[in-house]
Amino acid sequence: MSDDKIDIEILDTTLRDGAQGEGITFSLRDKLAVAETLDGLGVAWIEAGNPASNRKDLEFFRLAASSLKLKNSKLCAFGSTRKKGITAEEDGNLRCLLDAGTEGITVFGKASEFHVREILQAEPQENIAMISDTIAFLKKEGRTVIYDAEHFFDGWALNRSYALSTLKAAADAGADRVVLCDTNGGCFPGTIAEAVKDVLDSISGIKVGIHAHNDTGLAIANSIAAVQAGCSHVQGTLVGFGERCGNTSLASLIPSFELKLKLRCLPSGSLVRIGELTRRTAEIANVSISDDMPYIGSHAFSHKAGMHVDGILKRNVSFEHINPGEVGNERQFLMSEIGGRSAIVERVKKIEPSVTKEHPVVASLAEKIKALEAEGWAYEGADASLELLIRQELGRYTPFFSIEAYRVLSEHPASEKIACSHAWVKVLVGEEYEMAAAEGVGPVGALDNALRRALGRFFPALEKVRLDDYKVRVIDGKEATSARVRVLIESTDGQRSWNTVGVSADIIEASRAALVDSIEHKLIYDIERKE
Amino acid sequence: MSDDKIDIEILDTTLRDGAQGEGITFSLRDKLAVAETLDGLGVAWIEAGNPASNRKDLEFFRLAASSLKLKNSKLCAFGSTRKKGITAEEDGNLRCLLDAGTEGITVFGKASEFHVREILQAEPQENIAMISDTIAFLKKEGRTVIYDAEHFFDGWALNRSYALSTLKAAADAGADRVVLCDTNGGCFPGTIAEAVKDVLDSISGIKVGIHAHNDTGLAIANSIAAVQAGCSHVQGTLVGFGERCGNTSLASLIPSFELKLKLRCLPSGSLVRIGELTRRTAEIANVSISDDMPYIGSHAFSHKAGMHVDGILKRNVSFEHINPGEVGNERQFLMSEIGGRSAIVERVKKIEPSVTKEHPVVASLAEKIKALEAEGWAYEGADASLELLIRQELGRYTPFFSIEAYRVLSEHPASEKIACSHAWVKVLVGEEYEMAAAEGVGPVGALDNALRRALGRFFPALEKVRLDDYKVRVIDGKEATSARVRVLIESTDGQRSWNTVGVSADIIEASRAALVDSIEHKLIYDIERKE
Repeated sequence: MSDDKIDIEILDTTLRDGAQGEGITFSLRDKLAVAETLDGLGVAWIEAGNPASNRKDLEFFRLAASSLKLKNSKLCAFGSTRKKGITAEEDGNLRCLLDAGTEGITVFGKASEFHVREILQAEPQENIAMISDTIAFLKKEGRTVIYDAEHFFDGWALNRSYALSTLKAAADAGADRVVLCDTNGGCFPGTIAEAVKDVLDSISGIKVGIHAHNDTGLAIANSIAAVQAGCSHVQGTLVGFGERCGNTSLASLIPSFELKLKLRCLPSGSLVRIGELTRRTAEIANVSISDDMPYIGSHAFSHKAGMHVDGILKRNVSFEHINPGEVGNERQFLMSEIGGRSAIVERVKKIEPSVTKEHPVVASLAEKIKALEAEGWAYEGADASLELLIRQELGRYTPFFSIEAYRVLSEHPASEKIACSHAWVKVLVGEEYEMAAAEGVGPVGALDNALRRALGRFFPALEKVRLDDYKVRVIDGKEATSARVRVLIESTDGQRSWNTVGVSADIIEASRAALVDSIEHKLIYDIERKE
Repeated sequence: MSDDKIDIEILDTTLRDGAQGEGITFSLRDKLAVAETLDGLGVAWIEAGNPASNRKDLEFFRLAASSLKLKNSKLCAFGSTRKKGITAEEDGNLRCLLDAGTEGITVFGKASEFHVREILQAEPQENIAMISDTIAFLKKEGRTVIYDAEHFFDGWALNRSYALSTLKAAADAGADRVVLCDTNGGCFPGTIAEAVKDVLDSISGIKVGIHAHNDTGLAIANSIAAVQAGCSHVQGTLVGFGERCGNTSLASLIPSFELKLKLRCLPSGSLVRIGELTRRTAEIANVSISDDMPYIGSHAFSHKAGMHVDGILKRNVSFEHINPGEVGNERQFLMSEIGGRSAIVERVKKIEPSVTKEHPVVASLAEKIKALEAEGWAYEGADASLELLIRQELGRYTPFFSIEAYRVLSEHPASEKIACSHAWVKVLVGEEYEMAAAEGVGPVGALDNALRRALGRFFPALEKVRLDDYKVRVIDGKEATSARVRVLIESTDGQRSWNTVGVSADIIEASRAALVDSIEHKLIYDIERKE
């Protein structure tokens, strides 16, 4: 594939249709950051908002014109065809669209006779004039016009010839793209393919696109079916944000186009960054992406069953549909009762490369992990704790400190001069004792604060460490408040992050174990880096 | 559709393939609860584990045989074909499968010559004998045998005639079902349809099934393509749990079969419960289902864009692909309160039948619930807490007691004569104060014990109450140990059980709130029963 040749033109509508998803709101700065991220990936078009219906979007386009420097992508503004009963020139909304100053303009109009009559409450002929006038008007101003045919597939099923006549009107008026929308997201791939072929047979000389929604879990399949039937423009949102069940997730779709159908969608070298940039987009919206997201999720190449791990170690291709590196992802072997020794050997090798499957440490580790998992420990989300366990088994780990004693008190109502939760802790480092006390929002927070304070004098690097995530799971809920509790902690020092685990019937003890592992990991890592 | 006629046989493998998903672990009691939930939905088969490779699964089958009463579904155990170089009779794993005592047995074998040579490291002919011997052996014991052809589609693409010959061996040996697996999840619907047709043309007189994975986001599309090509048995997991990106989500697939393709999968009346039962399954695994899940997600029928809300108010069908009630879901308008109120009225009526939608208490409750949910409270799994809230709003609830003060101390190491965690609490009942102290395994257990002791003198009925389940979820993990925590408690008095919720940044406070609601609920219920 040459660097310049794009087979499928991608339009990302995270900032427009994506922002219509429940729980998704972007500030003006967020919108600029998302646009930069999408430009980094190199989608052809960024549909960035509806300037006529949303003041924030209007302001975004003003700001974008002056301060956003896009390298790969072009912006487009989104709006409706002209209103009933007035000319395009008289329509203030179309004026707004032009004022947005974007190279492209997406205009949506009605393709379904049912919607024209019942929702728009207009005559079918009037709707065709609305489409035609609007596009001719915008073309006269020199813009690239992308025409979104709302409810196209439902309309085509109800009244094929009317649906096609709306597209013909758009094409005749000069639209550059005609995009077929499954607005309600209820169509099946068979219908999509049939309708796309019908469209391509009926109108010619124009790029046809697909805009799918995921209400039946088929957005990706429908987009692929449309492209296989001849579409060459695909709309969606990187993460999959959008009304109801969301739009087509481009992050889960583009790798299939590029790697499996050999259809280039992005500039050369972009695909390996798709996971990172999707995560950044989600981060800006303050949501986390699903771990099981195709291609880019953190679980997408995780292997747990022993037989799968075994297979992968013999031949990668045996249990992986692509090489994870192609989308910037990584293979992972999960440590669990289902997984086997091969996974353990792979993990041990990262610390001591000479170890083979026959080394006695592998058998003893397998035994130990099995016993710990029976007690409720789980290492699949706690690699730093697993590493400490392995180092201990290899005889290559002496703890930097120990907690000699601690107390945590929670009292309600709070006393006048001290928070509800407070803790003291006594540590031993080498031959020196140190004690510290601290308050916190809850008992675990108080213990964490006191522990860091007690150790700070010995290990100043801990100042930069903070907890990034804290998860609690009751392991066997059926024994009620004395059930075992598993705590998973994610820590960060600003540069990297790591995960640790603790288990106990006592939530404070479980948290203590995970906190101690987190600190030990940081200290080992810093020392190894210095060596 | 008649009540008895099932067009598509559903096999749910939440307890086997689902448990191979990262982060999914089921205790023995969890497994029983999931099996009961799936039976409530009425899937044909529940594949419940691999007794030969997992001790917990073996124990599950023993327990299931004695204590699990299934009304609709049949259990099956899962395992591999016999080992190389021994007979089926000599294979201890097959003995384990029989010992599980299930009506069905799923056996998986290799369909891909590549996998036979590279992973199994056997001759193609030996693999065929392994398939054949195993199935004949299990059939002789009178079991229904479901044969899973691992890597079928990849194998078919590489060496069609070998892949087909493995299926023929299975069918000739008496397999009752032959299931085609896209084990790596990398296939496209077109390939699936073509291969299924080829299989149906090549072997006859046997039910053919599909087992898809979601690595390209196509598990649902691939299952539909397979059924449209002639498959009549579909495997998946209700929520979508499974290796890597998960198995086909049955909750998102079954509604398409039943509502759109008019293919019956479940007993009559089950479809409206699919959302509730999927949520329960997820709850048992202690994960929450995605809001944008097709059909059953809480956002699946949420309308945000003004134009969509407008369209819906004119004609429902304009922006909804099905009627949400058919899958037990509800329409929601995000900018207004219209959505939630009908549900609130229905709940209030259970306490005060005269209340209508216009009653001011409905508006104020809607407001209050919205505010509480924004703080992290969730009443979906805590009906007893919701009832207390409604009674309060109706002015029909005066708390029986209040906690004036409490203290919980956790200390490590433990003192000589007292447990690590101990608590004291002071309560006010009417005009009488009472104080009590108690020990416990963890801080919450200690508080629970102390509270019951303090109240016991006033309310002897509390003696019979005990906690049956205790769940903790961190609501916003990103603020680490000071994030909000939601505690859900299930209590029982031996006769009935009820659920309550508490939320706080402090886990002890959150638990306190849920414990207090639990006790109040018991006292109200006893009084109402006496009246």
